[in-house]
Amino acid sequence: MPDRHATRRDALRALLREAGADGLLVTDLLNIRYLTGFTGSNAALLLHGDGEDGTLFCTDGRYVTQAAAEVPDLEHVIDRDSAAALAKRARGRTGFESQHVSVEQYEVFTTTAQDADLVRAPGLVERLRLIKDEDEIDAVRRACAAADAALAELLERGGIRPGRTEREIARDLENLMLDHGSAAPSFDSIVAAGVNSAIPHHRPAADVLRQGDFLKLDFGATVDGYHSDMTRTLVLGEPADWQRELYELVRRAQVAGTGAVRPGARTADVDRAAREVIEQAGHGEEFSHGLGHGVGLEIHEAPSLAKKGDGTLSVGMTVTVEPGVYLAGRGGVRIEDTLVVRDTVPELLTLSSKDLVVV
Amino acid sequence: MPDRHATRRDALRALLREAGADGLLVTDLLNIRYLTGFTGSNAALLLHGDGEDGTLFCTDGRYVTQAAAEVPDLEHVIDRDSAAALAKRARGRTGFESQHVSVEQYEVFTTTAQDADLVRAPGLVERLRLIKDEDEIDAVRRACAAADAALAELLERGGIRPGRTEREIARDLENLMLDHGSAAPSFDSIVAAGVNSAIPHHRPAADVLRQGDFLKLDFGATVDGYHSDMTRTLVLGEPADWQRELYELVRRAQVAGTGAVRPGARTADVDRAAREVIEQAGHGEEFSHGLGHGVGLEIHEAPSLAKKGDGTLSVGMTVTVEPGVYLAGRGGVRIEDTLVVRDTVPELLTLSSKDLVVV
Repeated sequence: MPDRHATRRDALRALLREAGADGLLVTDLLNIRYLTGFTGSNAALLLHGDGEDGTLFCTDGRYVTQAAAEVPDLEHVIDRDSAAALAKRARGRTGFESQHVSVEQYEVFTTTAQDADLVRAPGLVERLRLIKDEDEIDAVRRACAAADAALAELLERGGIRPGRTEREIARDLENLMLDHGSAAPSFDSIVAAGVNSAIPHHRPAADVLRQGDFLKLDFGATVDGYHSDMTRTLVLGEPADWQRELYELVRRAQVAGTGAVRPGARTADVDRAAREVIEQAGHGEEFSHGLGHGVGLEIHEAPSLAKKGDGTLSVGMTVTVEPGVYLAGRGGVRIEDTLVVRDTVPELLTLSSKDLVVV
Repeated sequence: MPDRHATRRDALRALLREAGADGLLVTDLLNIRYLTGFTGSNAALLLHGDGEDGTLFCTDGRYVTQAAAEVPDLEHVIDRDSAAALAKRARGRTGFESQHVSVEQYEVFTTTAQDADLVRAPGLVERLRLIKDEDEIDAVRRACAAADAALAELLERGGIRPGRTEREIARDLENLMLDHGSAAPSFDSIVAAGVNSAIPHHRPAADVLRQGDFLKLDFGATVDGYHSDMTRTLVLGEPADWQRELYELVRRAQVAGTGAVRPGARTADVDRAAREVIEQAGHGEEFSHGLGHGVGLEIHEAPSLAKKGDGTLSVGMTVTVEPGVYLAGRGGVRIEDTLVVRDTVPELLTLSSKDLVVV
């Protein structure tokens, strides 16, 4: 049975035939990881359209041992300038990843690839990566579990309380995710207390948590290269009426957005479902970003769930649903889950409670 | 008096005149940070060749407040698609960062920039960034100090001892650097014990430190966006003769390399000075990488101190000197400093002892 990487390479060959190309020069490291399993920092892949014979993997001398272990099933070339080494070996009509290759690199390729006709072939591997297989979904699931466990442990040990700083909370969450199997934070954690919670992408600072504050936590873990993404907004002490109302509004929008996540749904319609709830409450202007995005080997990848999104959801996509309302000078609420598009209802991967948590 | 960013923009205008361009569309975020001080995640800059009038800064709605604070001295455009928004406003012969702009982005630029003649202008800002001003050197110095302090504290509290894992050591170092003013690790820390120390870029794993092991630590901090880079190799318990000899060899090579760092020196000659020491001891094959690299807003930037380097050192460059010898199956030693090229002898920024530390 071919392994998952060989299966993906075969799927890519089908796209290449559609595009009328004889091969593809893959130079994006995440795409190479997806197609081969290689996790080093220098590599290129020349995928032959006809099959594994003639498909070449290239890395440099530092990675000989690692490449032999991670990519046992392809012919290897060892060369420090991996992309050029494979461009030189390309034959026939060969696609290159023009969404990623710089204009200068392209100039080098054209002089190097003298026996090939290089053609722009943007986003082919990304098109495959849109739909996750169960191995990938399981990695995202474990990343989400690490984030859930970190938040639970932080709450349990009383780590969220007045007097602590945003930065301390961010560090605790990141360390606890490591304890629970994360290799690294999946992005710079957002910890925003009080009025800072009204800034969608606030960076944690020395600001101190105070009684009565909203506390917005947006953070994620990385497992086997796959990311998780979750936002929860808590309140320190008994919430004021406006806080309760704001929270319930965003909560309802999040439920509406999640409810619209199904195969065949237009991404703009999913955004609309959540946005309408917020607009009807008169806060449309204060929901200043898109509803969500794909999550996988990148923390932000296709599809984009936004007003102007033109895609359609399919089974196996992993996406976030994260409406927010930000009241400048007062505070903001965002609630975000990572979930998988399934045949019926979506599968929720971030399992932390979405009831308003009062600490 | 113009601030440092305005000074840098003026220096860039001089390069533009040399290149015969009327302006430059800057889209690399680090280059934008260098030229404006902006630290957000979406921006573009259209630098007008004649002066600040007509020079435009663009970011999106999330960053209006931050941009006003960080970039008070330029006209702002608010647009989600920042690069395209400024391409549309370009006039005359306008350079673009072709070392960074992808082939697909370039296609978009050409259709958008209808009133401009777009020309490849690779690496202009990077050329300025080669020579650090004293503000930049001070940031690198503080990043180096955070790393020094972290290692000192870890040693002092007995954190390096048999039974602990590589991963635990890496995490301790990263947390201690945060305590000492680092915003984030400057790269994935390398902690390599025993035979793992013979792998130049080993990733810390669950491997346990044992008496008699070499322990190679390669790590760095980030302060105000600037990086530090330092490697120290310690030994757990009384070193064996081969360990002492290997250490002293690398130590001598590091002294020789550092001694060759002076204004006007060819980068290949600096590499050669250190490499000769190792080759004469019969270990040339086991020093499998270049001697060093520039450090600044990127952890690896120009100049490259390597066999085939063709540059020349100038006052104000910040570079690493990091010879290593790796004996497969036994262990390896690397010793690395970050230093500044000065008129006379280089200024050392990483101050941790380079005597063989026995723990």
